[in-house]
Amino acid sequence: MGVVVSLDESRSDPESSLNDLVALVAGGMERVNTTILSRTGSAVTMIPEVAQHLIASGGKRLRPILTLACADLCGYRGGDGAVKLAASVEFMHTATLLHDDVVDESDMRRGRVAARIKWGNEASVLVGDFLLGQAFRMMVEVGSLRALDILSSAATVIAEGEVMQLTAAKNTETSEDEYLAVIRGKTAELFAAACEVGPVLAERPRAEQAACRSYGMNLGIAFQLVDDVLDYGGTSASLGKNVGDDFREGKITLPIVLAFRRGSEEERTFWRRTLQDGVIEDGDLETALNILRRHRALEDTTERARHYGAMARDALALFPNGPVKTALLQVVDFCIARAH
Amino acid sequence: MGVVVSLDESRSDPESSLNDLVALVAGGMERVNTTILSRTGSAVTMIPEVAQHLIASGGKRLRPILTLACADLCGYRGGDGAVKLAASVEFMHTATLLHDDVVDESDMRRGRVAARIKWGNEASVLVGDFLLGQAFRMMVEVGSLRALDILSSAATVIAEGEVMQLTAAKNTETSEDEYLAVIRGKTAELFAAACEVGPVLAERPRAEQAACRSYGMNLGIAFQLVDDVLDYGGTSASLGKNVGDDFREGKITLPIVLAFRRGSEEERTFWRRTLQDGVIEDGDLETALNILRRHRALEDTTERARHYGAMARDALALFPNGPVKTALLQVVDFCIARAH
Repeated sequence: MGVVVSLDESRSDPESSLNDLVALVAGGMERVNTTILSRTGSAVTMIPEVAQHLIASGGKRLRPILTLACADLCGYRGGDGAVKLAASVEFMHTATLLHDDVVDESDMRRGRVAARIKWGNEASVLVGDFLLGQAFRMMVEVGSLRALDILSSAATVIAEGEVMQLTAAKNTETSEDEYLAVIRGKTAELFAAACEVGPVLAERPRAEQAACRSYGMNLGIAFQLVDDVLDYGGTSASLGKNVGDDFREGKITLPIVLAFRRGSEEERTFWRRTLQDGVIEDGDLETALNILRRHRALEDTTERARHYGAMARDALALFPNGPVKTALLQVVDFCIARAH
Repeated sequence: MGVVVSLDESRSDPESSLNDLVALVAGGMERVNTTILSRTGSAVTMIPEVAQHLIASGGKRLRPILTLACADLCGYRGGDGAVKLAASVEFMHTATLLHDDVVDESDMRRGRVAARIKWGNEASVLVGDFLLGQAFRMMVEVGSLRALDILSSAATVIAEGEVMQLTAAKNTETSEDEYLAVIRGKTAELFAAACEVGPVLAERPRAEQAACRSYGMNLGIAFQLVDDVLDYGGTSASLGKNVGDDFREGKITLPIVLAFRRGSEEERTFWRRTLQDGVIEDGDLETALNILRRHRALEDTTERARHYGAMARDALALFPNGPVKTALLQVVDFCIARAH
């Protein structure tokens, strides 16, 4: 089977470990993209403008890809159910991004000026609400109450995770467990739900549903942890573009949680001044990177990500081998290899 | 039947025209209130705090009352379906209010400081999202795909109406039709959906579903038009507390649409300066009230509200007479009598 790429090969180029899965679901994703375009349409012209500004700016569409792949893995050969749920998942994700930008007061998103800068906070809040509404309409069209249950619960859990992050924000005493609870909610839950609806659509037994959910949940945690590492330039910890956004926004992520606990009193004073009090001076980012390096905080965060990646792989063990399963296992490599 | 109050009596005291309906659904509303309290619960303590700040501050809960009443009118005697949908409708309304405060940058809501002032814009956006998620979860529990379709479509239409208002904001050239399109979306659609799910739960024929929807839609339009009149002190147009909020925020409402079209060039210059350019000087609100009075803009907006109220009444004509129908007709009087 030409789609199997050796793990060593895939480790050398993160993108290549995603290619197989992308190729396997290409037909479905074309329909997802068409659906996304048609469902952002509205007579109120500002809505497609704002929605497509963000949607057209790319992103890998990893979540809808996972929905299609997990449906495929479970033998779903139905009509457009998986396509509509995949589009719903991407809309839920996009709505979250629009609302996050308002919450974080971000200026940039995916390398483009944030929608809230171009059209205002109002538009970001309301177009996010519109996309959430459209997501639910599509789910209702699919007509699976179990899928609706999973995705509506996810919407609640995501918001809970975000509020939790708000409460934990700038608190340098945040524990690893507290941080994990935040990212389970704000990031991993949507990965989990995106995967879980696949077996549900295919009407497979609970065990397969739980397996896909577990795969998505652990993959999502690994994904977010690596994102946290990347925000400090990856484990090479070199100063590149966009490095240090989390630091400047005073975001407490796992590298900081680890470095704070392992650090000296002097270092803790540094973290409190910069992250808690938001007093950031020239050279502080370099100091932060030095402290993270001293405590191996980025390497160990990546190590933690590997742990969740391993759980994601094991979750799929009950499925027979095949190209989709192989490609889903490679996605774990993709997520982790980005850290380097 | 002791619940029937003559229309003349009810006209003299707006609140009394609502009392009968409130009494008829009191048992159900007690369960709705319990549901609302339990479904705002979360281990993330900020969520119940923010949600209950707004929910506890009252409001008449007209929308969930309408859901219970329309279910009752259609003979629904099921379990807790109507209660859960009524609570969902109130959550959708509360989420909209939380997001509106961020969009409008409001400082006050229902006579209390707005949640966004006390907990920040972030909390208002995210707790709104949480409540929307909970609303959908409850709908899913009820398990009626038709009800889910109606309410998820409403969520989309409400967001569309709000974005439309954003686009029309401060544009003094807005036509009456454009303004009606805005309030159909942002206000009347939720009234319509709240009423429409009643007959759907009771599995009544399409004609009853359409009748309840039409009642809710026209009642909602009348309700919003009277709200617009009240913002200028009602048809008595006296300067009381909270009078002129819309004016200060540059909101174009029907009284302004009418006065602008009927006005002199000098008056139009005044509206453009105050509403479009936001340059408001001492005495401008009095001037605005004088112009509105000169063109009978508040009386005629109330007249328009009466027209939609009449349509709401007629929509119910196909239902046999009974206490619930009588009470629903009185709600129309309640909405319009507030204008005085």
